[in-house]
Amino acid sequence: MTFHATVLTLYPEMFPGPLGLSLAGRAREEGKWDLDAVQIRDFAIDKHRTVDDTPAGGGAGMVLRVDVLAKAIDHALALNPEAPVIAMTPRGKPLSQERVRALAEGPGVIVLCGRFEGFDERIFDGRAVEEVSVGDIVLSGGEPAAIMLLDACIRLLPGVMGAASSGTEESFENGLLEYPHYTRPAEWEGRTIPEVLRSGDHAKIAEWRKRQSEVDTRLRRPDLWERHEGVRVQSASGAQRETKD
Amino acid sequence: MTFHATVLTLYPEMFPGPLGLSLAGRAREEGKWDLDAVQIRDFAIDKHRTVDDTPAGGGAGMVLRVDVLAKAIDHALALNPEAPVIAMTPRGKPLSQERVRALAEGPGVIVLCGRFEGFDERIFDGRAVEEVSVGDIVLSGGEPAAIMLLDACIRLLPGVMGAASSGTEESFENGLLEYPHYTRPAEWEGRTIPEVLRSGDHAKIAEWRKRQSEVDTRLRRPDLWERHEGVRVQSASGAQRETKD
Repeated sequence: MTFHATVLTLYPEMFPGPLGLSLAGRAREEGKWDLDAVQIRDFAIDKHRTVDDTPAGGGAGMVLRVDVLAKAIDHALALNPEAPVIAMTPRGKPLSQERVRALAEGPGVIVLCGRFEGFDERIFDGRAVEEVSVGDIVLSGGEPAAIMLLDACIRLLPGVMGAASSGTEESFENGLLEYPHYTRPAEWEGRTIPEVLRSGDHAKIAEWRKRQSEVDTRLRRPDLWERHEGVRVQSASGAQRETKD
Repeated sequence: MTFHATVLTLYPEMFPGPLGLSLAGRAREEGKWDLDAVQIRDFAIDKHRTVDDTPAGGGAGMVLRVDVLAKAIDHALALNPEAPVIAMTPRGKPLSQERVRALAEGPGVIVLCGRFEGFDERIFDGRAVEEVSVGDIVLSGGEPAAIMLLDACIRLLPGVMGAASSGTEESFENGLLEYPHYTRPAEWEGRTIPEVLRSGDHAKIAEWRKRQSEVDTRLRRPDLWERHEGVRVQSASGAQRETKD
């Protein structure tokens, strides 16, 4: 089954964009995923093809109309009824690698990209739309976020990445940041590669990497570390693990 | 002064991509920012134009060479010496709207995009590279993240957004999620716009929005809420505020 992505956007010409090149582009040529970029404006209900209106209660900017969005979503769902509908919005739940992995195992995704001030709030309940955020920043529209979401999913599709192990040893796949990498030259501007990595002792190298991964996570991302430790404690006490596949 | 973005990448053809259209595209045509997408491979030092090598200590994937990266960065710094150098990497510090705002007020940014397993760790100290993450997910490369970072900066450049107020009332600009939006029609599939927004009472509307913004942040993003409350307490006790301009 092919992973089918539908992007609902006012700028379909932004797609495939970066997703048409490199890993994602090759995977698309090989039929491992496909993409419809759908113009929201095509679902407008007046002759001026209006998609937005002024915010109720006043204020700057324009809001995307719920009735137009619903028609666009219904169109996409008719073609891929089992696909989750995701809106890229800073008010959403932060995207996680777990969510990406679950999406990549499904039939695809319908991604709703906002512009202007955002969506009429009623769309989220009215069409069971999942609100997802890719960081605590504000974009000019949801399209760059949609490209990121799809890129993260596509690399996990079967047969897309070369080495199978590349998918499981990376940051977040075990709830930690990945360990640091080094390669030749052995010395550069007086900086050397850590001795242990040149020892040839695989057990010591694995131990060093695990420790480094833990140390870096604790120092750089105490939030991740706390969650990781929480999972470990739960796991050790025989409770059901909350995260991971 | 024009905001100058240099992207160091193995896929310069991914740029400007979505940044060539809509708000960012128009701003670029008007000279409000400019963009160099620089091929890292041009800085390889052997005749095969090698940019990567196997990881020291073994393992899957390839690592970008520190000597090649340093040459590419030095080239970019020669053209824009005051620009911060940022590497998009899941090991980095989560990007914040505060950091985006600071970048948008500066001379531009040099963005380093990884592919494969990532960068030789020595580059970060060796060239004072800031590691930045756009969410706890793994991408096929840094390019989609770079597009997101630049999009977030560009919309804040002087004269890019139409209504001045659009920049200050959005999510994260005050440490909270933005309040929900509504627009016509007043009723859709039995769902109505909250009464207060149709009252015409501006004080009541402002109060409702503030409360909604607080409630949503507390429920959806307890992490943001705790930080916001921490800032408030500090502020009230006369200590220096840590965030915001």
